Amino acid sequence: MGLFKSEARVVYEPASRVDVSPASSEVYLRANVKAPRMAGFLAKLFAWFLESRIFGTMLLYILKRDNLIHKLVTNAELEESPVYVPLHPFDEIEEQDVKHVGSDLSPPELVQQAIECLPVSFDKELNGSNSSFRYWTISDYSRAYKSGEITPKLVAERLIAAIHESSNPLFKMSFFINYNTEDILKQATESTLRYEKGVPISALDGIPIAIKDEIDCRPYPTTGGTKWLHKFRPCTDDACCVKCLRQCGAILIGKTNMHELGAGTSGINPHYGATRNPHDPSKISGGSSSGSAAVVASGLCPVALGVDGGGSVRMPAALCGVVGLKPTFGRVPHSGVLPLNWTVGMVGILAGTVEDALIVYAAIIAQISPNQPTLSPKVYFPLLNSAKPISDIKLAKYGEWFNDCSDEIRECCTNALDRLHKQYGWKTVEVTIPEIEVMRLAHYLTIGSECSTSLSSHLEKLDFKELGWDVRVGLAVYGAFSSKEYIQAQRIRNRQMQFHKNLFSHADVIVSPTVGVTAYPILDDALKTGELDYINGAALVRYSISGNFLGLPAVTIPVGYDKSGLPIGLQLIGKPWSEPTLIHIAFAVQNLYVADCRKPQVYYNLLNTN
Amino acid sequence: MGLFKSEARVVYEPASRVDVSPASSEVYLRANVKAPRMAGFLAKLFAWFLESRIFGTMLLYILKRDNLIHKLVTNAELEESPVYVPLHPFDEIEEQDVKHVGSDLSPPELVQQAIECLPVSFDKELNGSNSSFRYWTISDYSRAYKSGEITPKLVAERLIAAIHESSNPLFKMSFFINYNTEDILKQATESTLRYEKGVPISALDGIPIAIKDEIDCRPYPTTGGTKWLHKFRPCTDDACCVKCLRQCGAILIGKTNMHELGAGTSGINPHYGATRNPHDPSKISGGSSSGSAAVVASGLCPVALGVDGGGSVRMPAALCGVVGLKPTFGRVPHSGVLPLNWTVGMVGILAGTVEDALIVYAAIIAQISPNQPTLSPKVYFPLLNSAKPISDIKLAKYGEWFNDCSDEIRECCTNALDRLHKQYGWKTVEVTIPEIEVMRLAHYLTIGSECSTSLSSHLEKLDFKELGWDVRVGLAVYGAFSSKEYIQAQRIRNRQMQFHKNLFSHADVIVSPTVGVTAYPILDDALKTGELDYINGAALVRYSISGNFLGLPAVTIPVGYDKSGLPIGLQLIGKPWSEPTLIHIAFAVQNLYVADCRKPQVYYNLLNTN
Repeated sequence: MGLFKSEARVVYEPASRVDVSPASSEVYLRANVKAPRMAGFLAKLFAWFLESRIFGTMLLYILKRDNLIHKLVTNAELEESPVYVPLHPFDEIEEQDVKHVGSDLSPPELVQQAIECLPVSFDKELNGSNSSFRYWTISDYSRAYKSGEITPKLVAERLIAAIHESSNPLFKMSFFINYNTEDILKQATESTLRYEKGVPISALDGIPIAIKDEIDCRPYPTTGGTKWLHKFRPCTDDACCVKCLRQCGAILIGKTNMHELGAGTSGINPHYGATRNPHDPSKISGGSSSGSAAVVASGLCPVALGVDGGGSVRMPAALCGVVGLKPTFGRVPHSGVLPLNWTVGMVGILAGTVEDALIVYAAIIAQISPNQPTLSPKVYFPLLNSAKPISDIKLAKYGEWFNDCSDEIRECCTNALDRLHKQYGWKTVEVTIPEIEVMRLAHYLTIGSECSTSLSSHLEKLDFKELGWDVRVGLAVYGAFSSKEYIQAQRIRNRQMQFHKNLFSHADVIVSPTVGVTAYPILDDALKTGELDYINGAALVRYSISGNFLGLPAVTIPVGYDKSGLPIGLQLIGKPWSEPTLIHIAFAVQNLYVADCRKPQVYYNLLNTN
Repeated sequence: MGLFKSEARVVYEPASRVDVSPASSEVYLRANVKAPRMAGFLAKLFAWFLESRIFGTMLLYILKRDNLIHKLVTNAELEESPVYVPLHPFDEIEEQDVKHVGSDLSPPELVQQAIECLPVSFDKELNGSNSSFRYWTISDYSRAYKSGEITPKLVAERLIAAIHESSNPLFKMSFFINYNTEDILKQATESTLRYEKGVPISALDGIPIAIKDEIDCRPYPTTGGTKWLHKFRPCTDDACCVKCLRQCGAILIGKTNMHELGAGTSGINPHYGATRNPHDPSKISGGSSSGSAAVVASGLCPVALGVDGGGSVRMPAALCGVVGLKPTFGRVPHSGVLPLNWTVGMVGILAGTVEDALIVYAAIIAQISPNQPTLSPKVYFPLLNSAKPISDIKLAKYGEWFNDCSDEIRECCTNALDRLHKQYGWKTVEVTIPEIEVMRLAHYLTIGSECSTSLSSHLEKLDFKELGWDVRVGLAVYGAFSSKEYIQAQRIRNRQMQFHKNLFSHADVIVSPTVGVTAYPILDDALKTGELDYINGAALVRYSISGNFLGLPAVTIPVGYDKSGLPIGLQLIGKPWSEPTLIHIAFAVQNLYVADCRKPQVYYNLLNTN
């Protein structure tokens, strides 16, 4: 068969010999995505084809070939051995302005340590009272609760009203998959009582926090954005990270909407509705932690948890104009998170401000990961209250990659770098990041294989009618990878680990836009079937992959808007275990943009004490 | 198609809840191997079928189903996450009679430390001068060289003559793939000069050592038992372990024969001849480190290096009546070894005595593994010179597994345990090792997938006529695994890691026969095509898998003979990093059997100084 004729293959040079300097001969390869947008009947037809034994096999073969998977991964010739898990040895790295924190502290104690790293609070204008907009922070809530200006109970009541309003047929924001008014009020009443007695547990006491429906949180089932997964896998306990938040007194307000099974980036969920962008409800929120980004953006809570397996925290954070932090692989315990993959996904934080991301990070980090007894990274927090901003920072920039986005994003992020140079004297170091598109394909093979394996015993029992059509297509592709493809992907991982180690010897962080496009419209034909839009999808994940595939910490901070007023995020990718520096840099970036923040179209001012 | 109808699947209980006590409800599953022995034309036919696109796919499906791969692995329902690499954290374990060795010693210094752990040498009868037989040891050579009784040069000359004799058409032992008389004599002359000057480098100076042709060793190509692999992958340097031996002054005498690509257990190589068993040249030597076991058994050298990916050191050692030691995964650096797999294979040692295994172990161990910076296991050596044998040893025995071998092996190994009880007061602890057959299948999926991936870029360029027919069959099967099968196998690995951790809390070592059958005949029809004998193959690997799949150290010691005079080995499997205890126990076992050793039919007495 001509179809299966011998194909082109790449022969890779040993990773150690690949040049990452700007003079490198490595060529930037634009994503070669060959698949038209499909929704509605077309998506169904495509799924049916893929699921048929004979046509499906041929179609998958063609898809993999045309998208260069065969050439760049499957048949590639390379000498590196596979690296299966992106767990980095904990080396002590020199970090500026950090505080070492004891390794035996409880979550509330860790939160207190983080609070002590924050700058002294300044009297801020009330939201909406002038042109500049700021989200209410954990400190704002904490102060208001302590002073008695407002109670957690009142906040909870306003919150419930706001959720109701946002879900009514007019708004249809589809923020939540599940929330329980009674449970919210019960937690709020208990918290109120603690404040009345003068014994709040921590700064998180009474703070409303939303949880992505991929993370176990009582009393809710964990649906993973499906109508069926919770039937096979009952939620019997809080996930480890949720336990930590509960220990700190936080009010867990419910389970946020997500892209079904995390298997997409739009946040269009055919079962629970398309999560809409608070900055423009006709646009996507991004995914897969769609609801978690949107609830923070709309002011419903200062922070939410998400899970980031392929940018799933950072992408919606950028599209919704909030901060998104994905820590180093292994930093946050993964127990109680749906095992949709094992080697790329990590719990992440969505927050209105960098300070709040730090506080929640402090609450949920693992000091000793129970499954990795050899791994006990020390805990440092960044001293955000130090007199001057962090200095001598070197930002690595790969021009061709950085610029592979919409004109407005390119301009906005380039301006951000200029401001950072001018304000702080930081330097940009030009670099070359080799084989970025290869890494995207290898990551796709990896997350697809792991997702498909993890779900396979459930899928056997499932009526496929319960699945969205886009997910059916995804699962058909995911299930078609060979062991060779999976292992080749892990050899690519080894190469990238070496490249990035090398890159980080030249700079403190890698800087890029967070996504290649701003939020795009939700089209009607996608609402019931889901949508297959690999071209927009590739633009969304373009900058996310190294954070997942290589386990690197990364953060996105809002740095502007496009002409339609949709948010743009700047991404910083850090060295393994360098969260303190990363948060420090993010804080400095944020401080340049405080005055530029705009209030979303859908915004709830829960703390307004007027 | 009825062929693909929904199949049975196993639902595994969480590993933490599985009972490993003798009262366990776990059932011992005998290997359900469904494939007749094939050689000659039948093997060719089978290979052709498997290699055809349509028939091959169906045939592979049926093979996997009938051998329970689908039921027990692919479609199994289990909750464990995958563990991809059997690298154990280094915990300090309490070990008796051991000596801590500095972590900065050179290979010759390490050898000296090991020598100092040996019992004071006793005047021994010369080989052949009475009914009892002993192999010449490194100490024997070393003493003879030092005293001037004999020189390395004379030994080398005798050795070369012996190799010539063993390879002549009458004997056709097929021990070597490559040896270079000039290179051997050059090394021997240099060593002789050192002894003449009174400055030997170490106890290994002048000791002839053979290297499996899977390990790089100058000036030879590394064929991996093929006629082509060295054309694609030139050998440019010594492997790390070979470098260590050369640093110690050892004479590297050539590259030993092996099962082609390590993809079989018989040692029947259609390109370089079937390696014959020195105890009975009409029988197999076992594999894949066939030549390395046979040269030691025939007295050509006291030690040889092999590689053990699925028992490949221990099986031929047992069949040829020598000691075979496979250290903990990560203990010996793997660089310079053919990457036929990445997560199960380890360099191992074949030796005439336990003492010699210790000396070579000392020479080649990695103190800090360069690819695993977090891993720096401390080095301890067993004090074999302590006044009394190691005491209070608990041997874990799983009766049904232990007994799943030929009557003579069962009887011999059971007697060995009795002798150990009586002589040393050791105790046997009955246990249940769950899912042994599942582990064998998972290991097969793993080594097959990795082997196929590793070789794929070469195979693309290869004329398949250069491959043996048994290997063509193997590669067709290896290349047919899905990413799901590979990942499921790694989840099985996680289960077994937990089971074995649990088992080792009850005992010091696990004891078993090393193989289920003694050496079987080499049939003429296999000589040109290779042989497919999955039933004998399964009996050979039955006891080997945990050593590879779980990275555990293991050793085989000869403990008797069957009625035809073919050797029987007893296997000890140790806790991770517990080589000192393992060697100690093996030494005690050996001491009970010194008087029982028989001289092989093909034996060369190189050191005879009469």
